[in-house]
Amino acid sequence: MAFTQRMGMFISETHTTAAEWCFTVEKMLFEGVTKYQEVQICEIPRFGKTLFLDYKIQSSILDEFIFHECMTQPAMFLHPNPKSVFVAGGGEGATLREALRHPSVERAVMVDIDGELIAMVKEHMPEWHQGAFDDPRTELVHMDARKYLKETDEKFDVILSDLPDPLEGGPAVYLFTEEYFALCRDRLTDDGVFAMQAGCANINYPDCFAPCLRTVQQVFPETHGYWAIMTTFFLPWGFVLGSKQHSPLDLTEADLEARFEERGIVNRYYTPRFHRSVFTLPDYLEEAVRTKGYVMTDAAPFIWTA
Amino acid sequence: MAFTQRMGMFISETHTTAAEWCFTVEKMLFEGVTKYQEVQICEIPRFGKTLFLDYKIQSSILDEFIFHECMTQPAMFLHPNPKSVFVAGGGEGATLREALRHPSVERAVMVDIDGELIAMVKEHMPEWHQGAFDDPRTELVHMDARKYLKETDEKFDVILSDLPDPLEGGPAVYLFTEEYFALCRDRLTDDGVFAMQAGCANINYPDCFAPCLRTVQQVFPETHGYWAIMTTFFLPWGFVLGSKQHSPLDLTEADLEARFEERGIVNRYYTPRFHRSVFTLPDYLEEAVRTKGYVMTDAAPFIWTA
Amino acid sequence: MAFTQRMGMFISETHTTAAEWCFTVEKMLFEGVTKYQEVQICEIPRFGKTLFLDYKIQSSILDEFIFHECMTQPAMFLHPNPKSVFVAGGGEGATLREALRHPSVERAVMVDIDGELIAMVKEHMPEWHQGAFDDPRTELVHMDARKYLKETDEKFDVILSDLPDPLEGGPAVYLFTEEYFALCRDRLTDDGVFAMQAGCANINYPDCFAPCLRTVQQVFPETHGYWAIMTTFFLPWGFVLGSKQHSPLDLTEADLEARFEERGIVNRYYTPRFHRSVFTLPDYLEEAVRTKGYVMTDAAPFIWTA
Amino acid sequence: MAFTQRMGMFISETHTTAAEWCFTVEKMLFEGVTKYQEVQICEIPRFGKTLFLDYKIQSSILDEFIFHECMTQPAMFLHPNPKSVFVAGGGEGATLREALRHPSVERAVMVDIDGELIAMVKEHMPEWHQGAFDDPRTELVHMDARKYLKETDEKFDVILSDLPDPLEGGPAVYLFTEEYFALCRDRLTDDGVFAMQAGCANINYPDCFAPCLRTVQQVFPETHGYWAIMTTFFLPWGFVLGSKQHSPLDLTEADLEARFEERGIVNRYYTPRFHRSVFTLPDYLEEAVRTKGYVMTDAAPFIWTA
Repeated sequence: MAFTQRMGMFISETHTTAAEWCFTVEKMLFEGVTKYQEVQICEIPRFGKTLFLDYKIQSSILDEFIFHECMTQPAMFLHPNPKSVFVAGGGEGATLREALRHPSVERAVMVDIDGELIAMVKEHMPEWHQGAFDDPRTELVHMDARKYLKETDEKFDVILSDLPDPLEGGPAVYLFTEEYFALCRDRLTDDGVFAMQAGCANINYPDCFAPCLRTVQQVFPETHGYWAIMTTFFLPWGFVLGSKQHSPLDLTEADLEARFEERGIVNRYYTPRFHRSVFTLPDYLEEAVRTKGYVMTDAAPFIWTA
Repeated sequence: MAFTQRMGMFISETHTTAAEWCFTVEKMLFEGVTKYQEVQICEIPRFGKTLFLDYKIQSSILDEFIFHECMTQPAMFLHPNPKSVFVAGGGEGATLREALRHPSVERAVMVDIDGELIAMVKEHMPEWHQGAFDDPRTELVHMDARKYLKETDEKFDVILSDLPDPLEGGPAVYLFTEEYFALCRDRLTDDGVFAMQAGCANINYPDCFAPCLRTVQQVFPETHGYWAIMTTFFLPWGFVLGSKQHSPLDLTEADLEARFEERGIVNRYYTPRFHRSVFTLPDYLEEAVRTKGYVMTDAAPFIWTA
Repeated sequence: MAFTQRMGMFISETHTTAAEWCFTVEKMLFEGVTKYQEVQICEIPRFGKTLFLDYKIQSSILDEFIFHECMTQPAMFLHPNPKSVFVAGGGEGATLREALRHPSVERAVMVDIDGELIAMVKEHMPEWHQGAFDDPRTELVHMDARKYLKETDEKFDVILSDLPDPLEGGPAVYLFTEEYFALCRDRLTDDGVFAMQAGCANINYPDCFAPCLRTVQQVFPETHGYWAIMTTFFLPWGFVLGSKQHSPLDLTEADLEARFEERGIVNRYYTPRFHRSVFTLPDYLEEAVRTKGYVMTDAAPFIWTA
Repeated sequence: MAFTQRMGMFISETHTTAAEWCFTVEKMLFEGVTKYQEVQICEIPRFGKTLFLDYKIQSSILDEFIFHECMTQPAMFLHPNPKSVFVAGGGEGATLREALRHPSVERAVMVDIDGELIAMVKEHMPEWHQGAFDDPRTELVHMDARKYLKETDEKFDVILSDLPDPLEGGPAVYLFTEEYFALCRDRLTDDGVFAMQAGCANINYPDCFAPCLRTVQQVFPETHGYWAIMTTFFLPWGFVLGSKQHSPLDLTEADLEARFEERGIVNRYYTPRFHRSVFTLPDYLEEAVRTKGYVMTDAAPFIWTA
């Protein structure tokens, strides 16, 4: 048995106590620091350009389209005619990009607390935003997204909550609670749709996904968990959709094909054909919701500890 | 930003040039060497008991049921009345275990070249085989599975090819070729079904899955790729099913529910509800089959190089 | 630039925040647990058989002779006629082995708190003790060495303090204090000699060595720091010698040659020729003693924190 | 036993098959590529600013003074009145800096093949060269040092060979051979002194040091190995001095003190007090020279393979 050892530069991230993932850094493209986090943009073999925040992998050019289509398109297509969209977080600009592909959209407000990060992303990650920040329909605001929603009385057709995981002391803890989800509901139009990234969806760490789904259920009459298989994260990723009227399960493949054609959109992962699979979770996740789901509140928020 | 470093014992495996996975070894339970490979059985946090061969992860108690249900059950349920089953490889005994759950099975032949490994597994991994090796319907043979199939003229209802990846110089290279698949077809009854593990199914290394699917298509009138999401492998895993008559897409959820009930089987991953998702591949895999698929032959076999 | 990644099994140890050392485990020879620690005995390439305690490297067959000669021989040769020796700690039995090489020795008491460790070492590490535990001059006791010294009124010619580093909560914290060193002095004969391992002697972590030297100075009229260059530790290692009458600097190479010959001893590292080098420390260590040295007491012991 | 895993960015270097050293990169200060190598300048905790070439550690601000004093000062002080100095290699400019401290020096020629590296070092590592490149006595040439020496007929009082290890295909292989050493001797004045870095001096990889010492012995009447203990390299490092007339062992501490005072030089590692220790090698190295030493020639050079 030949052992091999390493030479080179690596970024290491520990995912639970089970394992460390150690990414090969072929080239450091950019390093920066903002008020909130450290930013690394690297070239990783077989992944390509990749963003890390605080040395945790966020997104690679390889499959960011999978994440951002799933973050955005199920809610956008569920709404029959989305005119206004609100993005909470969404630093790379790719969620915004996906929303703006819908020709019905007239206004897109993106509120991300970290303006320095956006400036770095704008310069160094054009493949992600593809000009979305400069679209005339876009309004970009740098403040806490929950505060923004509280202070406005504007209503949106779609709200997309593309926030970092609720790490201890991080800026996202109170954007994963019942109070925040209720605020989102109140800022939606009568047939509005909400979607959020809800943590990983693997069998041994559903600790974030399960309470997210349970909590959104408190607030929306229609709540559905769904998932995306992300090579970059070495994990399936979970999302939750909350809706005031429409259910994604009522949309047949033919219905969706009609909407895709009407809106002139061609996707690469979330397609009419794949829609049903995206919304079908394995038994272990359904069981996790039953056994590990609970209502996250401002008084008792979920903190990512793995 | 607080850096942290490591203390402890670890097994490292490199998956492509992109990354190394480094598993925490909480306890080394067993180490052994056979004529073909080195064997490590360890306790990994959040995975539990885990088998490594040559320091490459094979199976953990956490989700081996996902792998082995997908390896076995789609073919077994597709066949209306499977009486005889052939398992090529299948060292841990869990594929055999899954096949024997079908009450119609009268005979199960498992041919694995590494008898020393089976002896170790039998003693140290009872959670996997659960007595399957001692089932009176089981015949266990230690030789090359292809040679066995060539020399017999027995016919089987189901053939399950649960072999290691075709590594350079390894024993499995010529069990991933058109000639082998044709031999399997010839050893199947008229409505027989074949299934195989076909390598990982992620977006940046479909290099094994794509030619497997393309090659099985040469041999069987019905060929279908399918996948399982494996936390232990940090990857989705690909399988290919070849069938002489039946198509899995013809089975509705209700059809399957009836078969599950009739056979008294309750699964945890491959369920009637989840069947359609298991057989629906994302566009990137379908595209990989078109662009990277080719026919693997004895003259030009596929060798795993990543 | 070709990056390489790893395959295999490794033990990792972090030394300060600067670096992790990752040892290749060619073969795990033995694993055990005692009341005090976890024990790993492995085969490491180019090191050979190697002992780890709690995954921290302790000793390899490659150069354990350097450590144990330096731990033992300077004190033994400084004493003109050592008849009785006390070893505090010294688990592997190699310090005891070195002491017993002096034909004048009539009695050697070794007190190590971890009897289970000694039993494992006795069975699995015969290259270290080489039968020393069974020497008729040896008395082996399993209790706290300080307690033993307190309760006895026996006097010894040489006391060797071969203890683990004073880790938080570990058994050695109060065997690195002025009170303990004074107790050792009181249990020595009028021309007795004391020696101890005193932590690493590198330029960026003299945090243990400096206060050890300063504290022994409080208790013995003659105190001398010395060092050994240990490949296995990737570090120079520090020792401190305290003596009631004799100074190692008074021994010329010729004096030592005479004593070596008289006692029939041939060393491989601590030789008459090398004696002066062993007792000559670089300026950075002398400066560390001045700037970072302080008196460790029971009330304010040193705790290893790097 | 608590296992810990990692988070952050690291540079890994394998030293022999035994171990990998994994350095914490607190901050990447500069990355560059030259025709010959990749350059990384990083901030490492407890090491400070550190230079890597091709991800192999070269020098840190922590103890570069130990390496460069030992590289330079024994030869410079051995010569009674060094007026002209030749530096082969010496990229960081610190060997040049050390030579220029001697007030007798009137001319210093440094020949390093990698002009791009020198430009990077000049800008990003001023703590190393401290202006030496701009000293009016300095002549800096970018070509192969052996070719330069062959083409000149100038004679030097001191030649310092501060070259990278002789890696396969690297630029230094033929600057570690008898022919090169003979050329150096021929370019020295009648009482000239030569010194070279000669690879690591640890017990399990003396593979470079031993033949270096043996080969220089072929060429100079006085040849002496010596060493420095380098925390940054986790190793003792070996050097070889060849001299036409003078022997370092003839210099007493008092002789050296007089020379240091006369030249107005105060060192931090190679001091009159420490001189004898620097030139006293442990038995294992002396034995390695006997058993592993051989004459390296252009026809049969040494290639670093560990």
